[in-house]
Amino acid sequence: MTSMDQTKANHDDAAKPLWGGRFSEAPEGRLERFGASLPFDRRLWREDIAGSKAHAAMLGRQGVISDEDVSAIEDGLDVIAGEIEHGEFAFDVDVDEDIHMAIERVLTERIGPAGGRLHTGRSRNDQSSLDAHLAAKEYSTRLCHALIDMESCLLARAESEFGVIMPGYTHMQPAQPVLMSHHLLAYFWMFSRDLVRMRAALTAADTSPLGSAALAGTTYPLDRRSVADALGLTRVSPNSMDAVSDRDYICDLVYACSLVQVHLSRLCEELVLWSSAEFGFVEMDDAHSTGSSIMPQKKNPDFAELVRGKTGRVVGDLMGLLTTLKGLPLTYDKDLQEDKEPMFDAVDTVSDSLFAVSGMVSTMQVKEGRLAEASHEGYMCATDLADYLVGKGMPFRQAHAVVGRVVGDCVREGITLQDLTVDELRSYSDLFSEDVSSALDVETVVSRRTTYGGTGHEAVHEQISEAHARLSADEVSLGGE
Amino acid sequence: MTSMDQTKANHDDAAKPLWGGRFSEAPEGRLERFGASLPFDRRLWREDIAGSKAHAAMLGRQGVISDEDVSAIEDGLDVIAGEIEHGEFAFDVDVDEDIHMAIERVLTERIGPAGGRLHTGRSRNDQSSLDAHLAAKEYSTRLCHALIDMESCLLARAESEFGVIMPGYTHMQPAQPVLMSHHLLAYFWMFSRDLVRMRAALTAADTSPLGSAALAGTTYPLDRRSVADALGLTRVSPNSMDAVSDRDYICDLVYACSLVQVHLSRLCEELVLWSSAEFGFVEMDDAHSTGSSIMPQKKNPDFAELVRGKTGRVVGDLMGLLTTLKGLPLTYDKDLQEDKEPMFDAVDTVSDSLFAVSGMVSTMQVKEGRLAEASHEGYMCATDLADYLVGKGMPFRQAHAVVGRVVGDCVREGITLQDLTVDELRSYSDLFSEDVSSALDVETVVSRRTTYGGTGHEAVHEQISEAHARLSADEVSLGGE
Amino acid sequence: MTSMDQTKANHDDAAKPLWGGRFSEAPEGRLERFGASLPFDRRLWREDIAGSKAHAAMLGRQGVISDEDVSAIEDGLDVIAGEIEHGEFAFDVDVDEDIHMAIERVLTERIGPAGGRLHTGRSRNDQSSLDAHLAAKEYSTRLCHALIDMESCLLARAESEFGVIMPGYTHMQPAQPVLMSHHLLAYFWMFSRDLVRMRAALTAADTSPLGSAALAGTTYPLDRRSVADALGLTRVSPNSMDAVSDRDYICDLVYACSLVQVHLSRLCEELVLWSSAEFGFVEMDDAHSTGSSIMPQKKNPDFAELVRGKTGRVVGDLMGLLTTLKGLPLTYDKDLQEDKEPMFDAVDTVSDSLFAVSGMVSTMQVKEGRLAEASHEGYMCATDLADYLVGKGMPFRQAHAVVGRVVGDCVREGITLQDLTVDELRSYSDLFSEDVSSALDVETVVSRRTTYGGTGHEAVHEQISEAHARLSADEVSLGGE
Amino acid sequence: MTSMDQTKANHDDAAKPLWGGRFSEAPEGRLERFGASLPFDRRLWREDIAGSKAHAAMLGRQGVISDEDVSAIEDGLDVIAGEIEHGEFAFDVDVDEDIHMAIERVLTERIGPAGGRLHTGRSRNDQSSLDAHLAAKEYSTRLCHALIDMESCLLARAESEFGVIMPGYTHMQPAQPVLMSHHLLAYFWMFSRDLVRMRAALTAADTSPLGSAALAGTTYPLDRRSVADALGLTRVSPNSMDAVSDRDYICDLVYACSLVQVHLSRLCEELVLWSSAEFGFVEMDDAHSTGSSIMPQKKNPDFAELVRGKTGRVVGDLMGLLTTLKGLPLTYDKDLQEDKEPMFDAVDTVSDSLFAVSGMVSTMQVKEGRLAEASHEGYMCATDLADYLVGKGMPFRQAHAVVGRVVGDCVREGITLQDLTVDELRSYSDLFSEDVSSALDVETVVSRRTTYGGTGHEAVHEQISEAHARLSADEVSLGGE
Repeated sequence: MTSMDQTKANHDDAAKPLWGGRFSEAPEGRLERFGASLPFDRRLWREDIAGSKAHAAMLGRQGVISDEDVSAIEDGLDVIAGEIEHGEFAFDVDVDEDIHMAIERVLTERIGPAGGRLHTGRSRNDQSSLDAHLAAKEYSTRLCHALIDMESCLLARAESEFGVIMPGYTHMQPAQPVLMSHHLLAYFWMFSRDLVRMRAALTAADTSPLGSAALAGTTYPLDRRSVADALGLTRVSPNSMDAVSDRDYICDLVYACSLVQVHLSRLCEELVLWSSAEFGFVEMDDAHSTGSSIMPQKKNPDFAELVRGKTGRVVGDLMGLLTTLKGLPLTYDKDLQEDKEPMFDAVDTVSDSLFAVSGMVSTMQVKEGRLAEASHEGYMCATDLADYLVGKGMPFRQAHAVVGRVVGDCVREGITLQDLTVDELRSYSDLFSEDVSSALDVETVVSRRTTYGGTGHEAVHEQISEAHARLSADEVSLGGE
Repeated sequence: MTSMDQTKANHDDAAKPLWGGRFSEAPEGRLERFGASLPFDRRLWREDIAGSKAHAAMLGRQGVISDEDVSAIEDGLDVIAGEIEHGEFAFDVDVDEDIHMAIERVLTERIGPAGGRLHTGRSRNDQSSLDAHLAAKEYSTRLCHALIDMESCLLARAESEFGVIMPGYTHMQPAQPVLMSHHLLAYFWMFSRDLVRMRAALTAADTSPLGSAALAGTTYPLDRRSVADALGLTRVSPNSMDAVSDRDYICDLVYACSLVQVHLSRLCEELVLWSSAEFGFVEMDDAHSTGSSIMPQKKNPDFAELVRGKTGRVVGDLMGLLTTLKGLPLTYDKDLQEDKEPMFDAVDTVSDSLFAVSGMVSTMQVKEGRLAEASHEGYMCATDLADYLVGKGMPFRQAHAVVGRVVGDCVREGITLQDLTVDELRSYSDLFSEDVSSALDVETVVSRRTTYGGTGHEAVHEQISEAHARLSADEVSLGGE
Repeated sequence: MTSMDQTKANHDDAAKPLWGGRFSEAPEGRLERFGASLPFDRRLWREDIAGSKAHAAMLGRQGVISDEDVSAIEDGLDVIAGEIEHGEFAFDVDVDEDIHMAIERVLTERIGPAGGRLHTGRSRNDQSSLDAHLAAKEYSTRLCHALIDMESCLLARAESEFGVIMPGYTHMQPAQPVLMSHHLLAYFWMFSRDLVRMRAALTAADTSPLGSAALAGTTYPLDRRSVADALGLTRVSPNSMDAVSDRDYICDLVYACSLVQVHLSRLCEELVLWSSAEFGFVEMDDAHSTGSSIMPQKKNPDFAELVRGKTGRVVGDLMGLLTTLKGLPLTYDKDLQEDKEPMFDAVDTVSDSLFAVSGMVSTMQVKEGRLAEASHEGYMCATDLADYLVGKGMPFRQAHAVVGRVVGDCVREGITLQDLTVDELRSYSDLFSEDVSSALDVETVVSRRTTYGGTGHEAVHEQISEAHARLSADEVSLGGE
Repeated sequence: MTSMDQTKANHDDAAKPLWGGRFSEAPEGRLERFGASLPFDRRLWREDIAGSKAHAAMLGRQGVISDEDVSAIEDGLDVIAGEIEHGEFAFDVDVDEDIHMAIERVLTERIGPAGGRLHTGRSRNDQSSLDAHLAAKEYSTRLCHALIDMESCLLARAESEFGVIMPGYTHMQPAQPVLMSHHLLAYFWMFSRDLVRMRAALTAADTSPLGSAALAGTTYPLDRRSVADALGLTRVSPNSMDAVSDRDYICDLVYACSLVQVHLSRLCEELVLWSSAEFGFVEMDDAHSTGSSIMPQKKNPDFAELVRGKTGRVVGDLMGLLTTLKGLPLTYDKDLQEDKEPMFDAVDTVSDSLFAVSGMVSTMQVKEGRLAEASHEGYMCATDLADYLVGKGMPFRQAHAVVGRVVGDCVREGITLQDLTVDELRSYSDLFSEDVSSALDVETVVSRRTTYGGTGHEAVHEQISEAHARLSADEVSLGGE
């Protein structure tokens, strides 16, 4: 008897559940629903069908099943795919516990024993792992593109606002004036690091576990490499026991999502602050704001808050995954069914959040007048003013003290450093003279920070070029994947 | 103009979104769906309608709206409730962003301006907070009952297995023999502590925030106490700003759920181990097991594993909540919309898990023969054997060493302590004589641990009585809630 | 031979490690240090000595050890306690793996075999659990007092600032003016809920596990109740297996700490914002700020930021604990050694944070002028202005639209609602007349919110009384513990 | 005045704290200690001194400070380094708040104003960031080597145990027999993925932020590239604002640590189970076990449990970090001081854990007899037995049922499949004949799984070769770093 015939013998009865033969009673309603993954893993139907088609074709090539079987399986799966796509496939959690069974059961009902032979040399353990790999690869690829969009949007805004000066903060206190472009580009580089992490997640997912069977591999003469090729997967897993219990690639993806969301939360915190009446630096576009049914004056940066708030759920997804994996013995334990929902949730959340925030950044109205005003408040030229005195020969510590007194008096009188006349300054030190204006000119103060990575106009110009180059390189390399 | 008339003026137009007047464009499709809570908060329709009816009745009593309005509102809400209950209410996330708007819009379409007057003196901020309080109270009450069921089930099993002896472990090494009843009761007390936490969560939820309006309270002459009474809520929130931003009661509930699930994970770990071929202490009921389509011999404790695995998601829910709340300024920020999904998820998970595990405990088959065998393996009488020698006058350290040698030899020969004859024992020490049998009799060794809380038969009997008393008291006090 | 003699035989040799007899080699240096808990559990020396003294006295009363032994043990422990207190006790992790062994070894070296008899009827499993219970009770008691201090400080400030009006925010947008007292009291109630949680943690800790021995109880005639009484512990654990593996009380304490820290993070976020140049609502006291060695103008709210940042570590402590406990079988597993460090870390962090924040709140300078100004900005009277028109007969929706236009024009002109003359208002609607001033008077707008829990002066006055009553009751009841 | 002179003016007074000039009172004791990082960041003294020397040399090359100053600084720092190394440097948290100040203050006390000039063109913001980058790079490099050691150890054991057969489990139920080498190699690949993540963390850390100054860059003509080169850092950060607020590289490191620890926890769970009396598959080396002072028979796998338990703290470190970062506005906020302790804790824990576990794996005694016995229990050949019948022409479903009955009867009689004679088998089906022995021969069953990645002897042999190749490549590439 050939292995093809062996296969023929498999599953000649699609009775449900497949493993039920030895048992006197089936899990009843509530338990069945509790144990079922169909409500969430049905989302993986494309991956499941693609995997089955590649597996069937390989079985055919290897002579394990007949060409007729291969055709029947492929045609049957194509019909099912069409039905699912058009919402015409009746999923029923009371009948099928997961997407694999739902598709296989209907396939077998329709094409007969050939449907059963599809499962030759594989197990739900490697099949579900394959589906998750394909999905994780697809999701990380899409998120890479979404990150590139986010970067493009920040870069475009950094260019369009070039020259606008705003307060730079440490400890939320005005510290030194900076170019708004410089501030926006700080986020460019964060998302650029996220792209590195997301590509690492993509690479981690880019492996085919199929052929590991239940845990030990199989006795059928599978060509694992060709299945991976057909599915566009770069690597084949080297150890069957690891393959059916590995969820690292999902952790990598959810971790990459966590840091994206943390970065978004930082940007959104700033957008919320900048939108406040007190800062007044930007105004969110109407489409990215909501109002109040009671308070006519309200324009709330709802979406920025929501994105910030959603950081919790993504971090919680990661936490949940790691906790689930802790202390699990090899190989497959049912605990591992808890892998997909956090992945879906994290990916969806980050995808929507990137969409929302890139929209906010692109459309927000920058209030240049208010920024100019704020750049003169906060005494952010104090450092340069002290440096001026040092330049005139005063020891730094003394200069620091003199400027401290100047600032203190301005605070008390509610005026800015620029409001002071040279004469008034001279009442603090004879070293002040007309040329002090350059130390108090915000534009000059900014432009003097010329070192690589600094906020000076020239340095930021160079940074923009570098960002463009990075973006192009990323687009090119991703395009090739 | 009376406040009743003022109210009349509100919302005479149910155009959507209610706050849209000032804006030139509405949030477009994807953003709207991203921001909408209707997909998950529709679950709160009962709470929302109950709250609205109580609010409307109070407004009527206070003369803020007319009796006719109250009747129209109540009748309209009753019809809507019936429709939702029977699946005849068309929720549409493209039209309504949350459950409050979905119900109010339809109500107003049907009963006219009176529907708009329902919102007098309240805001979605306190309305959604009320719904969540009512739900959290309901959920924690139900979980209290589920915990009592779990305790009952453990107690019943502890009674039915009274007398069965099994190995007690430290570091997963056999340490001293214990009554299986004692082991099961250890979990009784865990869940009994969970009940304390769950009741604390119930108490925390048992507060009405209604009347806090958007954040500052309202100018309408509301009778907040009577609304709380009508809804069966014990307390009224003392500070409107706190009331609309407080999510502590949800944290309390999810924390209580986390520890329940951690306890379940410990019990399930044991059930998985006990079901293994190597331990073989119990066999799960068929309804709580699954098999394998490939391996005919398999009977997998799937549900125990799944419950153990779900610990991650509940802990992740808690983590997400705390992260979301961190650093949020007063009062309502959209971040807080992220409160409900973790609550729903944690509550559902724990509820299903308690159901599954209590079923497992009730139906599992205890394999007494294997337990008796295991109780003789593992050299768990070694302590008592050393004590025997000490009782005969040998210094403990020497006795410890002698018994160490005895155990070492038995290990090498693959026999138990009970397999040794007195003569064989005497080859290690002359102090051994016939009466050593009592130190090697597992039953005697167990029964000698008579101190309160110990594993001796008498002590466990007393413990069972105490557990019954606790359970009765809990049932009585919960019944009154 | 009596059990006293049995005891005498125990530990007549303090060779280290106590369990080493059966082994050919001891864990070498790095492993020993990795496994040792002495570096952190030495902090529990007071608890350990108190527990040992209570245990010894009970053993004496029960006739298990002699009165001479009891005296020798008590005197020896007192000397050791004095030495540790004065830093004269030489802890050495290379010799002792934990605080229990460190003390017992030295005691036995000094008083001879009586020192070994101290360990009769107990194990390190119940001994270390007792120490942790005592510590958790002590810590939660102290934190209860610290929370009361925090509440007192907020209440005092709420009283001293009574009458000061500030903007109330939703979505960080000015919404309606509120009393600063009302805002501060919102935090009073948060910490008041924390006190409930902290007392629950105290109650959870208030149990004596001593007498559970290794896992199964003991054969010695212990009087567990009297030991608990001597240590001031209310309950005695009812199940020995649960007692040595239970860490719920530590979770409860760390959870209570987590929410305290989350609340502190919210308050600190506001203090940071209020201290910013843009808000300018408060100025932190010098002692709670730091400056910059470079920027003379800086005054950074360092401590508020640090407290906010430390939320992560406390939440991380909780998550670590729950993850460690997940899936652990009964009874004692070495994993449980990971319980103490997160407890110490969370307790210390929260204690210091409460100290720092209560200091900030007490000493910060409220800038009434800036608050008054801000209360007129932000168009927070818009709701009341619309209500005014409704009161004059205009439908609410129309009034909402009119006020929307008024606000829009003010925004464009950069003026406040109060800057408008009645004539200017009449250009929007004839219904405006002289009495509109009351709708635009911030003081009046605030005071009209009179419902219980609202921000009206009268309601806040009532709230302050309630807060005082709560505080007194808490002080009284805590004093009794 | 040259910038060299400017520098000279800086810090001519080492009064503490440096920023104290503007304030009337310094933070008092407890607050100072609360805010100080010296107790933990003193660990970074090597990095701090290396960074300062590189910075000073560059300042000299750029003509910002004199060669004499450079020499004085370098010599002074070398002396300090020697003192710290030999424990002769007196750190005092009451005087210095962090490692930077501790070193700079003493340097300035000793070499005078030149010490102050060292700080020219930098700020503690970029200085502390540099130290953390250097440390993270060093730690990730060391952990890469530790991972390679772990892999080597697993690979060596896989080779030395080649041929030993053990049960392979799914759901903790015996599923199919596997080579122990295959099982051990599953972990090899996990740690090999960890190495990828750890190298990504190394790369992320491999960047110099120095030159970013407080947030905006500096006006001094720094040569940032040469400083990075001197410190062996590959990249220079492109944006100063991002550079002082970025902590991604620490998250990457702690995330990599988290998954290492999760993998260790899985292995340790298995080691604990395998060491149990019931499994009895391995015996831990004495050095990796502990005993009991009471129970002479105990040999506890303490270190495996401890490593498993420590998963919580590492995951907690990651969660703490992410929570701290959530919602932080740019640039430096004091919250970020909370970055180092979780990094130190995670790195130390993982380092010690890898050491402990690789020791366990290397030294554990594999009990071949017990493994052989267990490989015949559990009916793991049932799949192959059913396949045998299928090979003889029986439909699979019928074969599955027949074998199900065979297994059922064996279970009831307490015998293995191998205990059955051919005659006994024939009573279930006539198709059984003498050649059935191959389907029941565990060795044959294992060896038939020949596909790449499977457990067959040949496939595992190939896998071992691949693992060697991977290891060599990793060693080579790491060596070059």
